Amino acid sequence: MRRILLRVAYDGTNYHGWQIQNNGITIEAVLNAALSELLGEEIAVTGGSRTDAGVHAMDNVAVFDTRARIPAEKIPYALNRRLPADVRILHGEEVAADFHPRHCGSIKTYEYKILHAPFQIPQYRLYHYWTYVPLNTAMMRAAAAPLLGEHDFTSFCSLYAQAEDHVRTIYELQVEEHALFGMPGADTQAAPGQAREIVIRVSGSGFLYNMVRIIAGTLMEAGRGRLDAAAVARILAAKERHQAGPTAPPQGLVLKEYRFL
Amino acid sequence: MRRILLRVAYDGTNYHGWQIQNNGITIEAVLNAALSELLGEEIAVTGGSRTDAGVHAMDNVAVFDTRARIPAEKIPYALNRRLPADVRILHGEEVAADFHPRHCGSIKTYEYKILHAPFQIPQYRLYHYWTYVPLNTAMMRAAAAPLLGEHDFTSFCSLYAQAEDHVRTIYELQVEEHALFGMPGADTQAAPGQAREIVIRVSGSGFLYNMVRIIAGTLMEAGRGRLDAAAVARILAAKERHQAGPTAPPQGLVLKEYRFL
Repeated sequence: MRRILLRVAYDGTNYHGWQIQNNGITIEAVLNAALSELLGEEIAVTGGSRTDAGVHAMDNVAVFDTRARIPAEKIPYALNRRLPADVRILHGEEVAADFHPRHCGSIKTYEYKILHAPFQIPQYRLYHYWTYVPLNTAMMRAAAAPLLGEHDFTSFCSLYAQAEDHVRTIYELQVEEHALFGMPGADTQAAPGQAREIVIRVSGSGFLYNMVRIIAGTLMEAGRGRLDAAAVARILAAKERHQAGPTAPPQGLVLKEYRFL
Repeated sequence: MRRILLRVAYDGTNYHGWQIQNNGITIEAVLNAALSELLGEEIAVTGGSRTDAGVHAMDNVAVFDTRARIPAEKIPYALNRRLPADVRILHGEEVAADFHPRHCGSIKTYEYKILHAPFQIPQYRLYHYWTYVPLNTAMMRAAAAPLLGEHDFTSFCSLYAQAEDHVRTIYELQVEEHALFGMPGADTQAAPGQAREIVIRVSGSGFLYNMVRIIAGTLMEAGRGRLDAAAVARILAAKERHQAGPTAPPQGLVLKEYRFL
C-alpha cells in the first residue's frame, strides 16, 4: 500500500463543496470516481480543507491509499484526462504511510476577492463578490489588526460548526487594493480607481466553519465605516456569532495555498 | 429621436460572437431584445467591434436611436435587470444624431491572455489560453517590433475577411509577464515563475478579421524560438495569410478599451 498526496485546483461554481453528500455533486465524489476508474480499485480520498459549496481552490490537498504502481508524479496527467474541466490535479507525490493532511501542522492561505465597481462586470462574476458600496480599505486594515494571533474565534464561526475547540491562530491578514485600469467609461465618467479589486488575504493554522467568510463580511462592515478596531476586539471577546458581520457569499473565496510545516 | 451610446462588457463564452446570426445566440441579439422590451420600440443597435464567437469584452460599444425619454445614464440600471448575468451595460450617454462608432476615429485596445503552466488551472480556463510549452517573452517582444506602425496587414487577416483595405495602424504592442505566486506545489516542485500569465496588449486604429488572434498566434511561434523579428518583417511584406502563425483560440482575447478620438 502506498499513500499519495495530490494538489487539486477547482472552480467551485458548479459544486456542492468538497465533502460527499446526497443532494449534489462534490469535488470529493468526482475525485473518488476518477481515481477508482484510473486505478481499478475503490479509492476514497481524505481532503485537506473541506471547502463549502461555491468556494474555489487553487491548492487543496487530497490523500489516498493505493496498491497501483503508477508513479505519483504521473497521476496528474492520467487523472486530468478523466476529470471535468473545472477540476484539475496540479501535483502528485508519495508521502509517509501515516501522513494525514488534517493531523499535521499546516498553514493555509485563503483570499477573499471583492470587485468594487458601479456595475457588475461579467468576467468577475464567478470569482469575486461584487459590491457598488464604497469600501475604505484603510479602515478595513485597521479593523483586521485585532484578529491577528491566537484567539478563540467563536464569534467568527458558523453556529452550525461541529468543532469544539474554537481557538485558532491567524499569522497574516492583509487587505490589498488594485485599481482596474482600462475600465469602461474611464474616459467619460469614471474617476481613476472607481473600479477596484480588493483582496483580503488570510493565513492561519486552520479555520473554523465559515470563518474566512465571516471575517470578510465583518471587514466589509468596517470598510463601510460601521465598525472600527475597538469594535472588532469587542466582537472577538464576546464569543457570540451574532456580534460579527454577515457571512460573505462563497464565490469570492479561494483556498490559495496549503503548506505543510 | 435621440442617439444613445452604451458601453458593454460581456463574457463571450456562451455566445456566437457579437453579430446577429441564425444558428446561435449573439450579444447584438440579446441587446436588441432587452432594449426593445425596456423602451417599447423596435431597437437595433450598431456595434463598435463585431467580436468573434468566444471572444470577451470589457468595453465594447453599442449605439441606437430611440424616442424614449429615459435619461441615458439611467439605462444601465434598467437594462442590466433584463440582461443575462454574462452581459452588462457599464455606461450610457447621449451622443450626436449622426455619431457612428465605426465611422469616427478610435483607438481600440485588445489583450490576449496566456496561462503558461504545467497543467490547466480551472479558474483560468475561461479567460486565458493555456499552454505548457515554454514561451520566451523577450523573443516575443522582439518579434512584435516590426508590427508597430502603419502596414498592410494582409498576412494577419483571415482569408474570410470582407474588408478591402488591409492597411491598419498599431500604436502599441506590448508583451507582459506576471508570475503567479502561491501556485500549487510551489513548495515541493515548481520553480518560481513556473506558472505565469503572459499578456499581449495591442492598441490600434482598427483591426482586420482575426488580426489580433493571428498576431498572438505568430508571437507564440516567436516565443517558441521558431520566428524572429526579421521573419515577422518578411511575413508582413509577403501579404499572404499562410505565412503568419496560426489563429490563437478565442477565449484568450478580450476587447479591453474602446476610445474615441
